[in-house]
Amino acid sequence: MLLPQINDPQQLKTLSVTELATLAEEIRRFLIDKLTVTGGHLGSNLGVVELTLALHYCYNSPKDKMIYDVGHQAYVHKILTGRQNRFDTLRKHQGLCGFVKRSESEHDVWEAGHSSTSLSAAMGMAVARDLKGEDNKVIAVIGDGALTGGMAFEALNHIGHEKRKLMVILNDNEMSIAPNVGAMHNYLSKIRSDRHYLRAKDEVEGLLLKIPAIGGRLAKTAERLKDSLKYMMVPGVLFEELGFTYLGPVDGHDLEKMIDTFHQADNVAGPVLVHVLTTKGKGYKPAETDFYKSHAISPYKIESGAALKAVGTPMYTEVFGQTLIELGREDKRLIAVTPAMPGGSGLFPFAKEFPDRMIDVGIAEQHAATLCAALAMEGMKPVYAVYSTFMQRAYDQIVHDICRHNANVMFAIDRAGFVGADGETHQGVYDIAFMRHIPNMVLMMPKDENELRHMMKTALDYNDGPIAYRYPRINGTGVTMDAELHALPIGSWERLRGGDEYAIVACGPMVQVAEEAAELLKREGKQVGVVNARFLKPMDNDMLLELSRAGTGMVVLEEASQAGSLGSAVLEFYAEHEIYDARVHLMGVPDLFIEHGSIKEQRQETGLTAEAVCARIRTMMAARAFPYKTTSSS
Amino acid sequence: MLLPQINDPQQLKTLSVTELATLAEEIRRFLIDKLTVTGGHLGSNLGVVELTLALHYCYNSPKDKMIYDVGHQAYVHKILTGRQNRFDTLRKHQGLCGFVKRSESEHDVWEAGHSSTSLSAAMGMAVARDLKGEDNKVIAVIGDGALTGGMAFEALNHIGHEKRKLMVILNDNEMSIAPNVGAMHNYLSKIRSDRHYLRAKDEVEGLLLKIPAIGGRLAKTAERLKDSLKYMMVPGVLFEELGFTYLGPVDGHDLEKMIDTFHQADNVAGPVLVHVLTTKGKGYKPAETDFYKSHAISPYKIESGAALKAVGTPMYTEVFGQTLIELGREDKRLIAVTPAMPGGSGLFPFAKEFPDRMIDVGIAEQHAATLCAALAMEGMKPVYAVYSTFMQRAYDQIVHDICRHNANVMFAIDRAGFVGADGETHQGVYDIAFMRHIPNMVLMMPKDENELRHMMKTALDYNDGPIAYRYPRINGTGVTMDAELHALPIGSWERLRGGDEYAIVACGPMVQVAEEAAELLKREGKQVGVVNARFLKPMDNDMLLELSRAGTGMVVLEEASQAGSLGSAVLEFYAEHEIYDARVHLMGVPDLFIEHGSIKEQRQETGLTAEAVCARIRTMMAARAFPYKTTSSS
Repeated sequence: MLLPQINDPQQLKTLSVTELATLAEEIRRFLIDKLTVTGGHLGSNLGVVELTLALHYCYNSPKDKMIYDVGHQAYVHKILTGRQNRFDTLRKHQGLCGFVKRSESEHDVWEAGHSSTSLSAAMGMAVARDLKGEDNKVIAVIGDGALTGGMAFEALNHIGHEKRKLMVILNDNEMSIAPNVGAMHNYLSKIRSDRHYLRAKDEVEGLLLKIPAIGGRLAKTAERLKDSLKYMMVPGVLFEELGFTYLGPVDGHDLEKMIDTFHQADNVAGPVLVHVLTTKGKGYKPAETDFYKSHAISPYKIESGAALKAVGTPMYTEVFGQTLIELGREDKRLIAVTPAMPGGSGLFPFAKEFPDRMIDVGIAEQHAATLCAALAMEGMKPVYAVYSTFMQRAYDQIVHDICRHNANVMFAIDRAGFVGADGETHQGVYDIAFMRHIPNMVLMMPKDENELRHMMKTALDYNDGPIAYRYPRINGTGVTMDAELHALPIGSWERLRGGDEYAIVACGPMVQVAEEAAELLKREGKQVGVVNARFLKPMDNDMLLELSRAGTGMVVLEEASQAGSLGSAVLEFYAEHEIYDARVHLMGVPDLFIEHGSIKEQRQETGLTAEAVCARIRTMMAARAFPYKTTSSS
Repeated sequence: MLLPQINDPQQLKTLSVTELATLAEEIRRFLIDKLTVTGGHLGSNLGVVELTLALHYCYNSPKDKMIYDVGHQAYVHKILTGRQNRFDTLRKHQGLCGFVKRSESEHDVWEAGHSSTSLSAAMGMAVARDLKGEDNKVIAVIGDGALTGGMAFEALNHIGHEKRKLMVILNDNEMSIAPNVGAMHNYLSKIRSDRHYLRAKDEVEGLLLKIPAIGGRLAKTAERLKDSLKYMMVPGVLFEELGFTYLGPVDGHDLEKMIDTFHQADNVAGPVLVHVLTTKGKGYKPAETDFYKSHAISPYKIESGAALKAVGTPMYTEVFGQTLIELGREDKRLIAVTPAMPGGSGLFPFAKEFPDRMIDVGIAEQHAATLCAALAMEGMKPVYAVYSTFMQRAYDQIVHDICRHNANVMFAIDRAGFVGADGETHQGVYDIAFMRHIPNMVLMMPKDENELRHMMKTALDYNDGPIAYRYPRINGTGVTMDAELHALPIGSWERLRGGDEYAIVACGPMVQVAEEAAELLKREGKQVGVVNARFLKPMDNDMLLELSRAGTGMVVLEEASQAGSLGSAVLEFYAEHEIYDARVHLMGVPDLFIEHGSIKEQRQETGLTAEAVCARIRTMMAARAFPYKTTSSS
């Protein structure tokens, strides 16, 4: 076994290509064995085993900067840079991060999680290198899916213009999370399917020789004709036109060819794009054939690849997907839009029944939002299905194109709140804070999956502008589902439990936490109310007034940034209404990025548990025995 | 005169091309005459006179949808659709909007202000049309600058894939606001400078005939050779590869040629891109030659084009630009990054002195932000100079790439607060609300231009993560400027005026408004304090505690969204510190989009004036005579 001896990429330099190939197989086995237990991005990493080996063989990390777009495909890089023995902790609390992580290794130079940032990062590092007079290489590894993100194009446009030396590895596996869509994908497919371009070169040159010698006025045209043959020889004309030298396509599982191509790339003066063809899930049958499951997987059985995860109550995502079909049958104007997440967003069943009313735009959150605005303005009822964290990319389009137009766009915001193993790049804890201040926006969050269904109906019936429902990345509560859907009154909250002097105002899954806390306190003889703040905007003014009348204190509990979210909105309400005796306590996500772990651990870490709520309320009750403080206790 | 009779685009149908050309000249004269008085986007509109005429001649608005990217170049469209007589009110309060405005006319189908949204809008309208079984045309007019915005590429990628019928007019005037940069620009320039492509076609076909007839194994290669000639005939191969039919380039001031090309485009089944070459400022010498001033201008002298605007105290923008040079001399690591706004952001002097440390990335706010993160991580000190409203595009990159990496990026946020004539699409009132909840961010706003200079020094000296200073689109106060720059203590506020029981906490230009209010109240014998809340995050905890001790009431005054901004932060602070007797009144921008007008009018409309502050404080004082209300007064 070679692998156990490798703890520094410099050790690869002494290996033969045959030994590298052996190592590749060992790494593949290692990945399959480890991920059986931990789960993780198996397919992407199986696809880049040889590519990563070739890079570390040809270049000197960390002096040469290796930037992995998204970073979920950096497991092989982690294995080669001294982190083999930590793979049992992958994506676990305080364990190895599922993405690139600077604090883990000097070889990790750029963190991500969201797609399409690597080219901008590479350009920044190249500019800094040149200004500092250094001479290291800068290499970005980007998938064909990530390449369609708008910011990747912005970076291509800049890199191709400035002509600094840097290398882009286009890791073309023909899919991002879902199979790719888009014209760029079609273009790459054409190159991929026509790999005989290069072979034709000699033949064409033979043909050209048969053209009689040209002089005079036609000479320039003949020259142009020869120039135009470049397009025939170079399949990547699109990249060439944007200022890159295009090399490839090269087989991403052929170490020797890749090493040759990288050497060739080193001799190019400006930016070079190496088009590498890889197979996602290479070497593991279930991952090669089942795209979606193999992207990010739960622990699985090694032979069949079947997930071990227990079957429980349905995920909110599934309830969304099923209910959308019901609504789609009811209203022909309903159309679903997703930025490359048809599977993750639970849209496959809808797409199957209504193929014409399902649009996957690829990784293009901005375009998706503005597309929805236009669809709405032409009388359609678009649902923008998106993860909270990725919706961050569309903030400006939500303000400028959707809310300013007051367009009837519905938002299905999935993965709102903590997301668990994906960690800090994916936490869905900012959308309330960045949506709440936008005029015309209506924002909801259901306490359970049954209420989600009613909210979807509420959104469909609403015709006064944009309306959003956000829901978490967890299983539903198992509540009984109503057969009939009805619209909720806009801005209405729900009092779930009486309580004269203290109340917990919560939204989403925190309502359940609030109920648990109230139940625990009840056992101590303390009666605390629970309110389901299902509308985050507008809020229920009557209930807010009622709560302040009852008036000795309330906790606003939310799995969202404490700054700017629901708690903040409650405080603003009382300030606007000049109510100064509502003692509001905020319990939200503190001003920190919360790292990977389980959702349960993330709640514990941030104090969003029934125990923490009880503790807070006990303190409030104790303080009440004394005169209210007029100065801070901190 | 033809123009005065035109109040509906249908009237154009009966005109001859010669008459259309006459009308073009009349429109040009009209624009120059009117904009002399009102100011506005002269150059862009002079450039599209013939293009707009040709579109309205060939198509039937509003059935056919005409979408103008950004929309600042829609004056001719407004003139042709019955709004001639309102041009005296252009960009004035309650007057004609400087952009497309749906409430003004049924011919205005898509509003914008920010760039690069038109292709997504067109695609949405095309999808809706097809689903509804209608047959109208959809036409997007987009500039070459706007085309480089990432979301435009996302849309191209989607449009080219789905192949629906729609038309993109690429209005190529070789510049956005500043001359364009980027590889796409180089590509378009190549097409533009080599307009003999088409003429060569016949000659090439002649050459091909000289190749002997080919059979057997070489037949396929010969076929491929002929295919490759497509690239020679079609200059827009990049667009062709992305799935568009490319037509052009066509002279955008030649009505006949444009009309012919549009008819040709109508016969294309899928998406077509018509490349139209125009001259910005066409027909008005000062606007043709002075790019920057002619983009958006103040009222000007008709002969020379010299702006009439009075010379006053320097704009904040200018102070920023000059100070940046001082800092650039002091610290070689300082590098400025702008998304296509080198002039508007006051960066020309810096660019002149430090050409290597000035990066204009084109319209690419997302890429600019991530580029800055990478520059910072490699030891540079990047300043991201951007308008508040355009920074909205980079929200995700600020969260994910800058703040999460805790990169030492400085933000120079210009046009923070109301922006005046550009109106609702450009108001810089959300950045506090969308930046404040992001961990690691430090956010400042100076009370005057002298303090701006110290904040810039503060930012340069700060090495613990991202730090931003935001400043308004107005002239400075005329304060005496300190020669020596010093760093301000992070999180420190400044008490400008004592006052035992009431205080106004304000930031930016609102500090001056607060001072005025305090002065007015003083004349009534009321002593009110004024605090300069120059750090929006972190805040001055000591002073906040002190204010609540003094404790009967305060007004938080800000030219920013009342939801989620400084007032909200103050409320959260008191809630976190369990201080319930700080009576905080919020005075910020209400939950509405604020339309165009002067900044003064916008402040009056939203109650952000000294008079309104006085009124509020008088009410607070009066209320104090009675027991505090425990229920709402509203």
